[in-house]
Amino acid sequence: MNAKIEDDTGRFAFGGLDRVLHEKARLGILSSLLSHRRGLSFNKLRDLCSLTDGNLSRHLTTLQEAGLIAVGKSLKEKRSLTLVELTPDGKERFLGYLSLLEGIVSGALANTEAKPELGWKPA
Amino acid sequence: MNAKIEDDTGRFAFGGLDRVLHEKARLGILSSLLSHRRGLSFNKLRDLCSLTDGNLSRHLTTLQEAGLIAVGKSLKEKRSLTLVELTPDGKERFLGYLSLLEGIVSGALANTEAKPELGWKPA
Repeated sequence: MNAKIEDDTGRFAFGGLDRVLHEKARLGILSSLLSHRRGLSFNKLRDLCSLTDGNLSRHLTTLQEAGLIAVGKSLKEKRSLTLVELTPDGKERFLGYLSLLEGIVSGALANTEAKPELGWKPA
Repeated sequence: MNAKIEDDTGRFAFGGLDRVLHEKARLGILSSLLSHRRGLSFNKLRDLCSLTDGNLSRHLTTLQEAGLIAVGKSLKEKRSLTLVELTPDGKERFLGYLSLLEGIVSGALANTEAKPELGWKPA
Protein backbone atom coordinates (compact mmCIF):
# COMPACT_ATOMS: atom_id res chain seq x y z
CA MET A 1 0.00 0.00 0.00
CA ASN A 2 1.35 3.38 -0.92
CA ALA A 3 0.16 5.84 1.70
CA LYS A 4 2.21 8.67 0.24
CA ILE A 5 0.16 9.44 -2.85
CA GLU A 6 0.08 13.19 -3.33
CA ASP A 7 -2.09 15.50 -5.36
CA ASP A 8 0.64 16.50 -7.75
CA THR A 9 1.71 12.97 -8.69
CA GLY A 10 2.31 12.92 -12.43
CA ARG A 11 2.00 16.71 -12.68
CA PHE A 12 5.13 16.86 -14.81
CA ALA A 13 4.65 13.59 -16.69
CA PHE A 14 3.32 15.49 -19.74
CA GLY A 15 1.46 12.40 -20.87
CA GLY A 16 -0.10 14.10 -23.88
CA LEU A 17 3.26 15.11 -25.32
CA ASP A 18 3.42 12.59 -28.16
CA ARG A 19 7.05 11.63 -28.88
CA VAL A 20 6.25 11.21 -32.58
CA LEU A 21 5.54 14.95 -32.79
CA HIS A 22 7.92 16.15 -30.08
CA GLU A 23 11.16 14.88 -31.65
CA LYS A 24 13.20 17.90 -32.75
CA ALA A 25 13.53 17.15 -36.47
CA ARG A 26 9.87 16.12 -36.76
CA LEU A 27 8.83 19.29 -34.92
CA GLY A 28 10.65 21.20 -37.66
CA ILE A 29 9.06 19.17 -40.46
CA LEU A 30 5.55 19.59 -39.04
CA SER A 31 6.08 23.33 -38.45
CA SER A 32 7.26 23.71 -42.05
CA LEU A 33 4.21 21.88 -43.35
CA LEU A 34 1.85 23.85 -41.12
CA SER A 35 3.05 27.08 -42.68
CA HIS A 36 2.88 25.69 -46.23
CA ARG A 37 -0.70 24.54 -46.68
CA ARG A 38 -0.28 23.35 -50.22
CA GLY A 39 2.53 21.04 -49.22
CA LEU A 40 6.27 21.09 -49.83
CA SER A 41 8.56 19.18 -52.13
CA PHE A 42 10.99 16.73 -50.56
CA ASN A 43 13.96 18.95 -51.51
CA LYS A 44 12.41 22.14 -50.18
CA LEU A 45 11.50 20.44 -46.90
CA ARG A 46 15.02 19.03 -46.61
CA ASP A 47 16.50 22.53 -47.05
CA LEU A 48 14.06 24.26 -44.68
CA CYS A 49 14.87 21.74 -41.95
CA SER A 50 18.58 21.34 -42.76
CA LEU A 51 18.27 17.57 -42.87
CA THR A 52 20.07 15.00 -45.02
CA ASP A 53 18.04 13.05 -47.57
CA GLY A 54 18.35 9.93 -45.41
CA ASN A 55 17.28 11.63 -42.22
CA LEU A 56 14.31 13.32 -43.85
CA SER A 57 13.20 10.02 -45.42
CA ARG A 58 13.36 8.26 -42.09
CA HIS A 59 11.33 10.95 -40.30
CA LEU A 60 8.77 11.12 -43.13
CA THR A 61 8.22 7.37 -42.81
CA THR A 62 7.58 7.75 -39.07
CA LEU A 63 5.15 10.63 -39.64
CA GLN A 64 3.39 8.83 -42.47
CA GLU A 65 2.97 5.65 -40.43
CA ALA A 66 1.40 7.77 -37.67
CA GLY A 67 -1.08 9.18 -40.20
CA LEU A 68 0.20 12.73 -39.75
CA ILE A 69 1.39 13.38 -43.29
CA ALA A 70 0.64 12.25 -46.83
CA VAL A 71 3.41 11.73 -49.35
CA GLY A 72 2.52 11.78 -53.02
CA LYS A 73 3.98 12.33 -56.45
CA SER A 74 3.14 15.13 -58.80
CA LEU A 75 4.46 16.01 -62.22
CA LYS A 76 6.24 19.30 -62.71
CA GLU A 77 7.74 20.12 -66.09
CA LYS A 78 7.63 16.40 -66.93
CA ARG A 79 9.66 15.55 -63.83
CA SER A 80 8.22 13.55 -60.96
CA LEU A 81 8.15 15.54 -57.73
CA THR A 82 7.67 14.15 -54.23
CA LEU A 83 5.12 16.28 -52.44
CA VAL A 84 4.58 16.17 -48.67
CA GLU A 85 1.49 17.52 -46.92
CA LEU A 86 -0.11 17.45 -43.50
CA THR A 87 -3.23 15.30 -43.37
CA PRO A 88 -6.31 16.90 -41.77
CA ASP A 89 -5.80 14.59 -38.76
CA GLY A 90 -2.10 15.52 -38.69
CA LYS A 91 -2.94 19.19 -38.69
CA GLU A 92 -5.41 18.75 -35.85
CA ARG A 93 -3.00 16.67 -33.78
CA PHE A 94 -0.10 19.03 -34.37
CA LEU A 95 -2.21 22.02 -33.34
CA GLY A 96 -3.22 20.11 -30.20
CA TYR A 97 0.41 19.37 -29.49
CA LEU A 98 1.40 23.04 -29.96
CA SER A 99 -1.36 24.13 -27.64
CA LEU A 100 -0.20 21.66 -24.98
CA LEU A 101 3.39 22.78 -25.39
CA GLU A 102 2.30 26.41 -25.08
CA GLY A 103 0.70 25.57 -21.73
CA ILE A 104 3.80 23.72 -20.50
CA VAL A 105 6.08 26.61 -21.45
CA SER A 106 3.90 29.33 -19.98
CA GLY A 107 3.37 27.24 -16.82
CA ALA A 108 7.11 26.77 -16.38
CA LEU A 109 7.87 30.43 -17.03
CA ALA A 110 5.07 31.54 -14.67
CA ASN A 111 6.52 29.39 -11.90
CA THR A 112 9.82 31.13 -12.44
CA GLU A 113 8.42 34.61 -12.35
CA ALA A 114 6.04 34.08 -9.45
CA LYS A 115 8.65 32.99 -6.94
CA PRO A 116 11.67 35.13 -6.11
CA GLU A 117 15.03 33.42 -6.53
CA LEU A 118 16.15 31.92 -3.25
CA GLY A 119 19.67 31.19 -4.45
CA TRP A 120 21.21 27.86 -5.25
CA LYS A 121 22.91 25.94 -2.49
CA PRO A 122 24.92 22.80 -3.09
CA ALA A 123 23.38 19.81 -1.32
CA MET B 1 27.90 23.95 -56.59
CA ASN B 2 24.46 24.44 -55.21
CA ALA B 3 22.79 27.29 -57.04
CA LYS B 4 19.49 26.74 -55.26
CA ILE B 5 20.27 28.22 -51.86
CA GLU B 6 17.26 30.15 -50.63
CA ASP B 7 16.73 32.71 -47.90
CA ASP B 8 14.72 30.41 -45.69
CA THR B 9 17.17 27.50 -45.76
CA GLY B 10 17.36 26.08 -42.27
CA ARG B 11 14.43 28.17 -41.07
CA PHE B 12 12.88 25.14 -39.40
CA ALA B 13 16.12 23.44 -38.33
CA PHE B 14 15.66 24.75 -34.75
CA GLY B 15 19.40 24.47 -34.19
CA GLY B 16 19.24 25.88 -30.66
CA LEU B 17 16.77 23.23 -29.49
CA ASP B 18 19.15 21.14 -27.40
CA ARG B 19 18.07 17.48 -27.44
CA VAL B 20 19.35 17.02 -23.88
CA LEU B 21 16.69 19.46 -22.66
CA HIS B 22 14.02 18.73 -25.29
CA GLU B 23 13.51 15.03 -24.55
CA LYS B 24 10.05 14.59 -23.03
CA ALA B 25 11.00 13.02 -19.67
CA ARG B 26 13.88 15.46 -19.16
CA LEU B 27 11.58 18.37 -20.00
CA GLY B 28 9.37 17.16 -17.14
CA ILE B 29 12.30 16.78 -14.75
CA LEU B 30 13.65 20.25 -15.54
CA SER B 31 10.18 21.83 -15.25
CA SER B 32 9.72 20.15 -11.85
CA LEU B 33 13.07 21.45 -10.65
CA LEU B 34 12.41 24.95 -11.99
CA SER B 35 9.30 25.19 -9.85
CA HIS B 36 11.03 23.77 -6.76
CA ARG B 37 13.98 26.04 -6.15
CA ARG B 38 15.23 24.22 -3.07
CA GLY B 39 15.47 20.97 -4.98
CA LEU B 40 13.50 17.76 -4.90
CA SER B 41 14.15 14.33 -3.48
CA PHE B 42 14.63 11.47 -5.91
CA ASN B 43 11.32 9.90 -4.86
CA LYS B 44 9.33 13.11 -5.14
CA LEU B 45 10.79 13.81 -8.58
CA ARG B 46 9.99 10.26 -9.69
CA ASP B 47 6.37 10.69 -8.60
CA LEU B 48 5.94 14.15 -10.12
CA CYS B 49 7.22 12.88 -13.47
CA SER B 50 5.64 9.40 -13.29
CA LEU B 51 8.96 7.73 -14.07
CA THR B 52 10.40 4.44 -12.89
CA ASP B 53 13.48 4.51 -10.64
CA GLY B 54 15.59 3.20 -13.50
CA ASN B 55 14.34 5.74 -16.02
CA LEU B 56 14.76 8.65 -13.64
CA SER B 57 18.31 7.52 -12.78
CA ARG B 58 19.23 7.34 -16.44
CA HIS B 59 17.87 10.81 -17.23
CA LEU B 60 19.49 12.33 -14.12
CA THR B 61 22.86 10.98 -15.27
CA THR B 62 22.38 12.62 -18.68
CA LEU B 63 21.38 15.93 -17.10
CA GLN B 64 24.22 15.80 -14.59
CA GLU B 65 26.80 15.04 -17.27
CA ALA B 66 25.52 18.07 -19.18
CA GLY B 67 26.04 20.23 -16.07
CA LEU B 68 22.35 21.05 -15.82
CA ILE B 69 21.64 19.53 -12.40
CA ALA B 70 23.45 18.72 -9.19
CA VAL B 71 22.71 15.54 -7.28
CA GLY B 72 23.68 15.39 -3.62
CA LYS B 73 22.89 13.64 -0.39
CA SER B 74 21.33 15.17 2.66
CA LEU B 75 20.35 13.69 5.99
CA LYS B 76 16.71 13.78 7.02
CA GLU B 77 15.70 12.10 10.26
CA LYS B 78 18.94 10.11 10.20
CA ARG B 79 18.12 8.74 6.73
CA SER B 80 20.17 9.64 3.68
CA LEU B 81 18.13 11.47 1.07
CA THR B 82 19.08 12.03 -2.57
CA LEU B 83 18.45 15.66 -3.42
CA VAL B 84 18.32 16.97 -6.99
CA GLU B 85 18.64 20.64 -7.92
CA LEU B 86 19.11 22.76 -11.02
CA THR B 87 22.58 24.30 -11.24
CA PRO B 88 22.70 28.06 -11.97
CA ASP B 89 23.92 27.21 -15.48
CA GLY B 90 21.14 24.63 -15.82
CA LYS B 91 18.54 27.17 -14.82
CA GLU B 92 19.86 29.69 -17.32
CA ARG B 93 19.99 27.15 -20.14
CA PHE B 94 16.55 25.79 -19.39
CA LEU B 95 15.07 29.30 -19.35
CA GLY B 96 16.78 29.96 -22.69
CA TYR B 97 15.32 26.73 -24.06
CA LEU B 98 11.81 27.63 -22.84
CA SER B 99 12.09 31.04 -24.43
CA LEU B 100 13.16 29.49 -27.74
CA LEU B 101 10.32 26.98 -27.57
CA GLU B 102 7.86 29.78 -26.81
CA GLY B 103 8.98 31.50 -30.03
CA ILE B 104 8.66 28.31 -32.08
CA VAL B 105 5.16 27.62 -30.77
CA SER B 106 3.90 31.16 -31.21
CA GLY B 107 5.49 31.32 -34.68
CA ALA B 108 3.79 28.09 -35.73
CA LEU B 109 0.42 29.14 -34.33
CA ALA B 110 0.71 32.59 -35.92
CA ASN B 111 1.32 30.99 -39.31
CA THR B 112 -1.84 28.99 -38.82
CA GLU B 113 -3.98 31.93 -37.86
CA ALA B 114 -2.62 34.35 -40.43
CA LYS B 115 -3.48 32.26 -43.46
CA PRO B 116 -6.99 31.04 -44.14
CA GLU B 117 -7.34 27.30 -44.62
CA LEU B 118 -7.18 26.44 -48.31
CA GLY B 119 -8.31 22.87 -47.79
CA TRP B 120 -6.25 19.73 -48.06
CA LYS B 121 -5.92 18.05 -51.41
CA PRO B 122 -4.36 14.64 -51.88
CA ALA B 123 -1.30 14.81 -54.10
